[in-house]
Amino acid sequence: MFTGLSAFPLTPLIEDRFDEAAHAGLITRLIDAGVDSIGALGSTGSYAYLDRDERHQVARASVREADGVPVVVGIGALRTSHVQALAEDAQQAGASAVLLAPMSYQPLTDEDVFGLYEDVTAELSVPLVVYDNPGTTHFTFSTELYARIAALPNVAAIKIPPVPLDAAAARKRIDAIRALVPGHVSIGVSGDSAASTGLNAGCQSWFSVVGGTVPEAVLPIVRAAQEGDPAGALAHSERLRPLWELFAAHGSLRVTAAIAEHLGLVAPRCLPRPVLGLSTSQRENVVRVVEELHLS
Amino acid sequence: MFTGLSAFPLTPLIEDRFDEAAHAGLITRLIDAGVDSIGALGSTGSYAYLDRDERHQVARASVREADGVPVVVGIGALRTSHVQALAEDAQQAGASAVLLAPMSYQPLTDEDVFGLYEDVTAELSVPLVVYDNPGTTHFTFSTELYARIAALPNVAAIKIPPVPLDAAAARKRIDAIRALVPGHVSIGVSGDSAASTGLNAGCQSWFSVVGGTVPEAVLPIVRAAQEGDPAGALAHSERLRPLWELFAAHGSLRVTAAIAEHLGLVAPRCLPRPVLGLSTSQRENVVRVVEELHLS
Repeated sequence: MFTGLSAFPLTPLIEDRFDEAAHAGLITRLIDAGVDSIGALGSTGSYAYLDRDERHQVARASVREADGVPVVVGIGALRTSHVQALAEDAQQAGASAVLLAPMSYQPLTDEDVFGLYEDVTAELSVPLVVYDNPGTTHFTFSTELYARIAALPNVAAIKIPPVPLDAAAARKRIDAIRALVPGHVSIGVSGDSAASTGLNAGCQSWFSVVGGTVPEAVLPIVRAAQEGDPAGALAHSERLRPLWELFAAHGSLRVTAAIAEHLGLVAPRCLPRPVLGLSTSQRENVVRVVEELHLS
Repeated sequence: MFTGLSAFPLTPLIEDRFDEAAHAGLITRLIDAGVDSIGALGSTGSYAYLDRDERHQVARASVREADGVPVVVGIGALRTSHVQALAEDAQQAGASAVLLAPMSYQPLTDEDVFGLYEDVTAELSVPLVVYDNPGTTHFTFSTELYARIAALPNVAAIKIPPVPLDAAAARKRIDAIRALVPGHVSIGVSGDSAASTGLNAGCQSWFSVVGGTVPEAVLPIVRAAQEGDPAGALAHSERLRPLWELFAAHGSLRVTAAIAEHLGLVAPRCLPRPVLGLSTSQRENVVRVVEELHLS
């Protein structure tokens, strides 16, 4: 389950409510494209903004529409007991695995975060992906903390932040993680623009934002890396450079939502307020890149 | 309402549930000490960790126990529609004002944050305090954004982060805010260790963490500043230096919770997991300071 392309769709809203029809359409595109797994309720899926009922509904809909393709469901929340309740809901919905980021309001210590994973993994009956996203959680994992958490039961993968763009530096980073984290725990990369470098450096999977909306644009990167063609993977990624530049300027979530809105896959203003979509002029740049790259 | 000491009590938990009896005891201490207002469900009150029902319960209990002293209720949440629902609940509970921080998961832009305040203030019938706490929200207000938000209806105060410890620098900062923010909007300082400096520099109130647990230790600071005795305010604050050093080392919330636990005001481990309390050796330091300063 933790190899290849793990595609993270948006959880589109319409009038501040879950747009189940649009969501079903997004999942169907992923299945048709042949992604390896689906990441429901990731950061791209706005998990942090949805209430428990909405998240249960999204998890159930994702599993139903995924038609047997494994679904990883995000269970992050600020309070441990809420995470545990969300883990129960996700398992009941048929999740193949759960994804947990250490969301924070008060800054967390290493002991807090270890305790969170200890409490949650103790009650799980599906594998857990440790989700390291310092840009949203404001928590920084050390490699030593990865290793402590990787020794807990049910920990199956770590979703790491972007690797350095330099191939040797990326390899060094993955080797340093692998030196402490046992082989049964998969390492997956996030940060779409550096994903080809991460896959070439030994990451077994790519947890992808844009792959959840336009999977056909990014699958060639993954397949090239898997087939032992690092130059091909880099070339396929390089083709998408205008997209990576938009991500760097505006964030991957807002750009991906604008792409989905432009392609008519979701209703306008599909993100949860207060997160506004891109401005009119920013959207014009997105449309230009969508057309240039033939994204569809 | 937005002058003097605004005391922010903990929302103590027991076995992961709201400890209403301990909370009532905390509020009674504040009333008996003569604080000017009570800040329920601030960061110190763990608002971000509680669900809507718990928050409604805490708001109602705070107003009831406050016995006529104004209660400001925190309504922050990640999603605008959730904030609006919490604002309704707070008003129904009898809040005299509401306090709103721009909580974030996805990084927010100035336009997002302005839109949040615009949406929320449009429906309010009580005053709103803008809550600027970059350490927890990871959003940085510009003074210009203060000014834009201050022009919205119902905006009555701004709770600013710690001022510089240097008196001239603090005065310069407050003057710069006051140059853009109209006089009907009160400026209150937070960050307990620099509060005396902030009050001396012209802040009209102090939104205090430790004042919510041991109000008698800090009221002399406020009263001295109000009586035009800046040296007295600084001296009263200087007396508490060992406390400020603990705050700098471990954060004001964890230290204040440890004080409340040591004094028997709340049950052990009163904070919401994953936020663990202080370690045994850290607690020993807290106890030493509590005794040295005769906190009770």
